[in-house]
Amino acid sequence: QDSGDSWLPSLLTETPQEGFDLAVTMARKGVTTTQGDKDVLFAVRPNYASDPQSLIDVSGVIAMYFATVAQANDHWEE
Amino acid sequence: QDSGDSWLPSLLTETPQEGFDLAVTMARKGVTTTQGDKDVLFAVRPNYASDPQSLIDVSGVIAMYFATVAQANDHWEE
Amino acid sequence: QDSGDSWLPSLLTETPQEGFDLAVTMARKGVTTTQGDKDVLFAVRPNYASDPQSLIDVSGVIAMYFATVAQANDHWEE
Amino acid sequence: QDSGDSWLPSLLTETPQEGFDLAVTMARKGVTTTQGDKDVLFAVRPNYASDPQSLIDVSGVIAMYFATVAQANDHWEE
Amino acid sequence: QDSGDSWLPSLLTETPQEGFDLAVTMARKGVTTTQGDKDVLFAVRPNYASDPQSLIDVSGVIAMYFATVAQANDHWEE
Amino acid sequence: QDSGDSWLPSLLTETPQEGFDLAVTMARKGVTTTQGDKDVLFAVRPNYASDPQSLIDVSGVIAMYFATVAQANDHWEE
Repeated sequence: QDSGDSWLPSLLTETPQEGFDLAVTMARKGVTTTQGDKDVLFAVRPNYASDPQSLIDVSGVIAMYFATVAQANDHWEE
Repeated sequence: QDSGDSWLPSLLTETPQEGFDLAVTMARKGVTTTQGDKDVLFAVRPNYASDPQSLIDVSGVIAMYFATVAQANDHWEE
Repeated sequence: QDSGDSWLPSLLTETPQEGFDLAVTMARKGVTTTQGDKDVLFAVRPNYASDPQSLIDVSGVIAMYFATVAQANDHWEE
Repeated sequence: QDSGDSWLPSLLTETPQEGFDLAVTMARKGVTTTQGDKDVLFAVRPNYASDPQSLIDVSGVIAMYFATVAQANDHWEE
Repeated sequence: QDSGDSWLPSLLTETPQEGFDLAVTMARKGVTTTQGDKDVLFAVRPNYASDPQSLIDVSGVIAMYFATVAQANDHWEE
Repeated sequence: QDSGDSWLPSLLTETPQEGFDLAVTMARKGVTTTQGDKDVLFAVRPNYASDPQSLIDVSGVIAMYFATVAQANDHWEE
């Protein structure tokens, strides 16, 4: 790909918080890879956005991507 | 970001217990990233806070973040 | 196998995004290994493609394969 | 913290079995962090303590904490 | 054991695809360890083989075994 | 503990298959740690032993323990 238009040019970030934000982006990409129709996603948001089980599971998925991003950045150790 | 107002300036903590507390903070952040409305979260608390399945899953999500925090701190080995 | 017709000749990719795409391919392969009948898979798509819980879980499965692909590529560190 | 009253002063244990016990403690702490009311936890015990799905999930959560404790102890290799 | 009749003599494989196949074998073994009765497994196949949630979860379990097999093979790096 | 009566004196095994068997033992221990009453466990067996979702989840829990056992044994590399 032309890395110019890539959504994931690199796993490296400046800070853990940016790493967390990248993990959130990857978690969402994992959803839109399966369901690309934004209207469908918007329509189902009320279901999961107030369902504790879904909210907990989303946090778990972010944790999995974050673990990989943290390793890529050597855990941002000074 | 100005690391002054960052919620996750670093993964480093003094002790495993502080590492566990940080993992709890990250697990909660993983929820509020999806559902930022505190009122909604407060309203659904009775559902998950006495549902064994949700309580077990929350502990699992904390475990995932804790694994990453522990690696960042070399497991706090003396 | 003759690596010519192998669907998984290597875990190495040029970029993280290609690594993510490979993880998606592996996640799907994990499904078709159990259910090889494309018609069945096509028939059940409406169920999971608009079910938040399934969409979140798919993203989690992609995250697991991506973690392995990222390690294989040393996290594409320059 | 004064490590005297810390529930998690260290991840180091003498044996794998003590490491497993520590993982069980951490898994439970992950629950009580969300639901601190022992009466509530006691009231819901009958639900999960005879529900195979919950019992399996608890074992999985213990496995996640155990993986981290094992790494902290270099897998107790002689 | 006499490794002659062992179903898991080694984690080493020639290629990533053979590693994936081994992970599938291990995932299935994890099921038959609990339920050894092939007739029961055959009887319940229609339930899970067209249930998206089960198919996604199976792929996730394969991913966990594959991660371990990939590490054992140093990710088949040339 | 007196390692004589310990159920988990070590994570080391001769072969991957013995490592898998140990992982199964640990997965079961993770259940009996929560529910020690064998009669209860025996009574609920019909529920999970023919429930695909439970069988898949059990395999996933075994995979988590196996990953740790494999690391402890350097993946039994010759």
